[in-house]
Amino acid sequence: MPERSLIFPTTEYRRRTTALQMEMAQAGVQALLLTTPPDVFYVTGFLTRFWESPARPWFIIVPAAGDPVAVIPAIGADLMGRTWVRDIRTWPAPDPADDGVSLLADTLCDLVPSTGHIGLPMGLETHLRMPIADYLRLTERLGPRQMVDATRVVHRVREIKSEPEIEKIRTTCRIAADAFAQVPNFAQAGQPLDQVFRNFQIALLRAGADWVSYVAGGAGPDGYGDVISPADNRPLERGDVLMLDTGAVREGYFCDFDRNFSIGPASDSARRAHASLIGATQTALDQLRAGMTARDLHQILTSALTAQGATPSGGRLGHGLGLSLTEWPSISAKDTTVLRAGMVLTLEPGVELAPGRIMVHEENIVLRDHGAELLSPLANATLPEILL
Amino acid sequence: MPERSLIFPTTEYRRRTTALQMEMAQAGVQALLLTTPPDVFYVTGFLTRFWESPARPWFIIVPAAGDPVAVIPAIGADLMGRTWVRDIRTWPAPDPADDGVSLLADTLCDLVPSTGHIGLPMGLETHLRMPIADYLRLTERLGPRQMVDATRVVHRVREIKSEPEIEKIRTTCRIAADAFAQVPNFAQAGQPLDQVFRNFQIALLRAGADWVSYVAGGAGPDGYGDVISPADNRPLERGDVLMLDTGAVREGYFCDFDRNFSIGPASDSARRAHASLIGATQTALDQLRAGMTARDLHQILTSALTAQGATPSGGRLGHGLGLSLTEWPSISAKDTTVLRAGMVLTLEPGVELAPGRIMVHEENIVLRDHGAELLSPLANATLPEILL
Repeated sequence: MPERSLIFPTTEYRRRTTALQMEMAQAGVQALLLTTPPDVFYVTGFLTRFWESPARPWFIIVPAAGDPVAVIPAIGADLMGRTWVRDIRTWPAPDPADDGVSLLADTLCDLVPSTGHIGLPMGLETHLRMPIADYLRLTERLGPRQMVDATRVVHRVREIKSEPEIEKIRTTCRIAADAFAQVPNFAQAGQPLDQVFRNFQIALLRAGADWVSYVAGGAGPDGYGDVISPADNRPLERGDVLMLDTGAVREGYFCDFDRNFSIGPASDSARRAHASLIGATQTALDQLRAGMTARDLHQILTSALTAQGATPSGGRLGHGLGLSLTEWPSISAKDTTVLRAGMVLTLEPGVELAPGRIMVHEENIVLRDHGAELLSPLANATLPEILL
Repeated sequence: MPERSLIFPTTEYRRRTTALQMEMAQAGVQALLLTTPPDVFYVTGFLTRFWESPARPWFIIVPAAGDPVAVIPAIGADLMGRTWVRDIRTWPAPDPADDGVSLLADTLCDLVPSTGHIGLPMGLETHLRMPIADYLRLTERLGPRQMVDATRVVHRVREIKSEPEIEKIRTTCRIAADAFAQVPNFAQAGQPLDQVFRNFQIALLRAGADWVSYVAGGAGPDGYGDVISPADNRPLERGDVLMLDTGAVREGYFCDFDRNFSIGPASDSARRAHASLIGATQTALDQLRAGMTARDLHQILTSALTAQGATPSGGRLGHGLGLSLTEWPSISAKDTTVLRAGMVLTLEPGVELAPGRIMVHEENIVLRDHGAELLSPLANATLPEILL
C-alpha cells in the first residue's frame, strides 16, 4: 500500500518537520503549536476551504522529535486521515463547554516536560486562530510549561521554498498569465468594473485555478486611488488605466502579480509611468543577489524609479509569497531580513502620477544563488492598449 | 453632498453602532475593540478581499457613545475614507518596531477612562486577528484599563439581521440557486470532480456572485465520506451521489446551501436518504418558532430523520449565516441559544447511509415571529438525476 499523503509525497512533509525541529532545538522549544491554514497545510498537507468557517479551531503540534500530532474537530478526521499524519485526536466541535482545550492541554502535557517551553508564532504577520479566552485557559492548564514566541522558527523554515513548492507556485503563475492574456477580450470601454472582475475570475478558473482567493484592482485616468478596494459598477472609460491583481490558488499555492492596461490609447504619463515600473523591476532582477536584505531590495527599486524621473509611492514594494497571498519579509525600508536562495518574492514597485493617483506593477520571482529567476512572465515595458 | 457610505446607507451603520453601544452599556464596557473582517465590515461597510493578506492588523473601536474610530494601516485609508467613518488614524504598516500598537493604545486611552473596561470578542467562534505578542504589549500599555470578554455584545447584535441585510442574503441565495440549476450541464459521468468544482464556481460568478469564498462537496456511491475536502480529479461515475455546497458572496453577504444530484439513475438508498433529508427540512420549516433554542431545533431535525427510518449523522445540523460562511449559534444538542426573529440560519440535516458514507442537505432561512421563511428555494424531495 502506498503511503498516504496529499499534494506532496510524505518525504516532503518529513523534511519540513525535521527542519522545524532543528530550529525548535535552537530556540529551546519542546513543541510547536500551529493554528493557521498555511501553517497547518505546510506540516500536514491538510488543505480545505473549510477554514472559511470561523466556528472551530484546529491544532497541529510538532513535537521535539517524531511526527506531528493533529488535535482537530471530528468533522476533519476523514480529510486529515488521508494526509501523512497518523496521530489524530478529535473532539465534537463546536463544544460550548470545552472546545478542544482539554484535549489540546492533555496532548501538550504528554509531549512536553513540565519545565518545557511550547513555541507559538506570536510576532509580526501572525495571529492565533482560536478564541483568546480558550488560549488563556490553555496556558493555565499547561503551567509550569511556558508558551514562548516561535515566529522565527516558522519563518526561517517556511520562507525557503523547496523545488516542489517552487514548481507549484510556477504553475499558479502560469495559470494567472493565461488569464491575464484574456483580459483584452472582456475589459473594453463600457464594461462595468465589477463585471470585469467577475470575468477575470472566470478566466482564472478556466485556466486551471482551483479557486481565486484574491482579486483586486482599480481603474481611472492616469491610475487608481488604491489597490485593495472591491470593484464598483462604474463602466471603464477610454483613457482609464485598468489594473488587475490576483492571488489565484492551485494545490494550495498562490501567485500574486498584476497587470496594467490602457483602455483606449494610453496617455503619455501612464505610458511613462508603466515603463518606469518595468524598468525598476528589470533593475531589481539584474541586481538582486542572495545575502542582500529586504531593505537593500527596497532601495534598489526606489532608486531605479527615481533615476527614471518617477515618484515612488509609499509602503512596501513587495513581500514573500507561497502558502498565503503575502508572506514575510516586507520589501520595505524597515525590514532587515536577509534574502536567501529559495525565497519566493514579489517585486511590486509603485509610482504616484498625481496626488492620489498611483500605478503599481508586480512580478513573482524565486531567489537563486546567482540571482532572481522569474516565476511570472515579465510584462513588456509598453503599456498594453485595449483598443476594441 | 450625499453622506459617504458603502453597501448600506449611513443610517444602517448608525443603527448597528447604537445597538452595540446599548449592549456595551449593559455589559459595563466603555469601548469595543474589533479586529476581524466580518466585525469590521458590520460596523463600517469596509469590504475588501485584502484581508487575505495576513501581513497587517486592522482595528475598529466602538466607543461608549459617538461614532466608531478606525485605527488601520495607511494602505486602507482611501477605502475606509469612502465609508461613513470619519475618525481614521493610520500607521505605515507593516512596521517591525511598532505595528500599530502605540497608535491603538493611545486611541483607547483617549476614549476609555483609566478605570474602564475594553470589550473584545474572546469566546466561542471568535479569534483575535493581530499578533498575540502585540496584544500582550497592548494590555500592558492600557493598564489599569482592563480587557474583558465581549463576545455576547457582538453576538446578540449581529445575530439579528435587519431587513436590508436579509435582502442581501436573499440575493446571494438567488445567485446560488441559478448556479445550481446549471449543474446538470457540466456534471456528467466522466467529468473529473475538480473540473466540476471549477465549472460550478464559474456558474456562480456568471449568476452574479462577486466572489466565491467557499465551495465544497463530494461524490461517491451512496454518498460521500466528508463535506469539507477539496475536489480530487476522480471522474464522476454513474451511481455516484454528487453534493455541491457553496458560500458565494455578493456585497459582503454569504449564502450557504447545497444540492445533491445522482449521476445516472439513483439507487433506492440514495433516493430514500434524500427524501428523508428534505422531509426533515420540511418538518423543521413547519415547526420552528421564535423562542425555541438551537437545541430544540436540533431535536426537531433528528427526530424527523429518525421517524423516517434514517440514521442522523453526528455533528451540528445547521448554524447562523450572514457576514461569514458560518455564524453562531450551532444547531446542536449542546447549544442553548434562544432563536429569535431576525436570525438567518441554515438547516443542515445529515444522514449516514453506510459506515463512512453520508448525505447532507442544506437550506437557508430567516426566522420570523410566525416561523421560518425560506431564503433558498427548497429542493424537491426527489433526488435529481443527471442522465446525459
